[in-house]
Amino acid sequence: MKIGFIGLGVMGRPMAGHLIATGHNVFLHRVKEVSQDLVTAGGIALDSAAAVAAASEVVVLMLPDTPDVEEVLFGDHGVASCLQDGALVIDMSSISPVATREFAARITAQGADWVDAPVSGGEAGAKNAALTIMAGGTEAAFARAKPILEVMGKRITHIGSAGDGQVAKVCNQVIVGLTIEAVAEGLFLAARAGADPARVREALTGGFADSAILKVHGERMIDEAFAPGFRIALHRKDLGLAIDAARALDVALPNTAMVHQLMGAAIGRGDGDLDHSALIRNLQVLASGE
Amino acid sequence: MKIGFIGLGVMGRPMAGHLIATGHNVFLHRVKEVSQDLVTAGGIALDSAAAVAAASEVVVLMLPDTPDVEEVLFGDHGVASCLQDGALVIDMSSISPVATREFAARITAQGADWVDAPVSGGEAGAKNAALTIMAGGTEAAFARAKPILEVMGKRITHIGSAGDGQVAKVCNQVIVGLTIEAVAEGLFLAARAGADPARVREALTGGFADSAILKVHGERMIDEAFAPGFRIALHRKDLGLAIDAARALDVALPNTAMVHQLMGAAIGRGDGDLDHSALIRNLQVLASGE
Repeated sequence: MKIGFIGLGVMGRPMAGHLIATGHNVFLHRVKEVSQDLVTAGGIALDSAAAVAAASEVVVLMLPDTPDVEEVLFGDHGVASCLQDGALVIDMSSISPVATREFAARITAQGADWVDAPVSGGEAGAKNAALTIMAGGTEAAFARAKPILEVMGKRITHIGSAGDGQVAKVCNQVIVGLTIEAVAEGLFLAARAGADPARVREALTGGFADSAILKVHGERMIDEAFAPGFRIALHRKDLGLAIDAARALDVALPNTAMVHQLMGAAIGRGDGDLDHSALIRNLQVLASGE
Repeated sequence: MKIGFIGLGVMGRPMAGHLIATGHNVFLHRVKEVSQDLVTAGGIALDSAAAVAAASEVVVLMLPDTPDVEEVLFGDHGVASCLQDGALVIDMSSISPVATREFAARITAQGADWVDAPVSGGEAGAKNAALTIMAGGTEAAFARAKPILEVMGKRITHIGSAGDGQVAKVCNQVIVGLTIEAVAEGLFLAARAGADPARVREALTGGFADSAILKVHGERMIDEAFAPGFRIALHRKDLGLAIDAARALDVALPNTAMVHQLMGAAIGRGDGDLDHSALIRNLQVLASGE
């Protein structure tokens, strides 16, 4: 199949690589030195998003944020300007659910299909084709996208209509961020109260306090091993999407707001490029000034 | 062995029952109509905590809160007044770590051993002898307590010195409470943003957002099945222990403080006897007034 792939960052490069390795004709835009191996492997570099769209039955996006997706879709020489009749656009970026619904409406008005399919699982998941994928779109659009998503991910769920994939991703980031804060406050209190946090973590594994975060991020907190992983700065972007959605919906998310603020303080302090398990440092800095 | 057991509530009754069934001579205090079957099974009812202590090599407590433990240990006709030389006191209640260190010092000053061994796992864990137990005390005291704890629990961890069992339990309740709020804010946002929270929960299972809370309490939130389980009123008591410890240590636990407040609002609204998964109702009430 002829597939366009736009967004060759840390995540996009291995994802596009899997599509090339599967034998698809993959058209790429913005190929830099770091992604030359994709061309060596058979990918075809083109000069604009419009050229990629003109060449492709399916266009996949994996971009940093909402404005990037808007620019690539609807900017000058954008995807929308040269979209094939009956094409399928799959946006795998993590961006605003509200903007996504608008983008989907504009793309489907052109007679194309839309699927938003943000991922979790990070760089390792991208490299191992083991991403968790949350998809929004019509049944028909999802059915078209599924075989392509299966090249890049393992656990693929059709959540609902366009935008619902992004809603699920934001929800994921809320739960992950607040669970990290939960584990941080628990283990920090344990340490300050004189108990060995490693023993406490071990005792709690297997009970109701157990989580992927307690296992993985709890260990990072105890070892102070804060190399990312997933950076605090990126996680704040995602919680910002939750805060924006809450504002648009006029609802309150008290602990999401608190963690969003605490992430901001960590970034201001210079911890933005640390793994999000380093949120425990907020508590230490607050209590001790360092 | 001659074992005293004081505190025959929802948890204590089945726990004492396991000790009787194992063939120990179990001395009981405050036997009410609901616990008569323990006497039928071979338990021996006595008139005071002092009488229980006088008859027992090991005294087990399973009481509601810190003042109850203080009264039973050090009040009139309390355990301390008639403790055998070289006895072992095992406090399985969930109470203040700070008070526990003081109680342990007073008991060991009488030449007895002390173990604090609070549990998690709830009524089902108590009935099935499958409690998770977090113990504090000397190595020697823990070694004495272990065979008795093994009659009531499955996962038994020696955290550290006296009081550290209670620290671990408070830490457990912080992580559980804040993870419930994490799942509540995520699933509430999903629902308000128009996605099916059941599909979102399914998509997130297996990833970093996964937890025992997402599985069990997430499902209760979606089904609005709020029969306890573990009551919000009891959980607020436990977070109160965390808040008290944070105050004593002069440290800040921002999300613990927020959840403690939100639990208070839920209790004020009449939701205190609902399962703690009903914390999601705070968000609904805040947004809609009902």
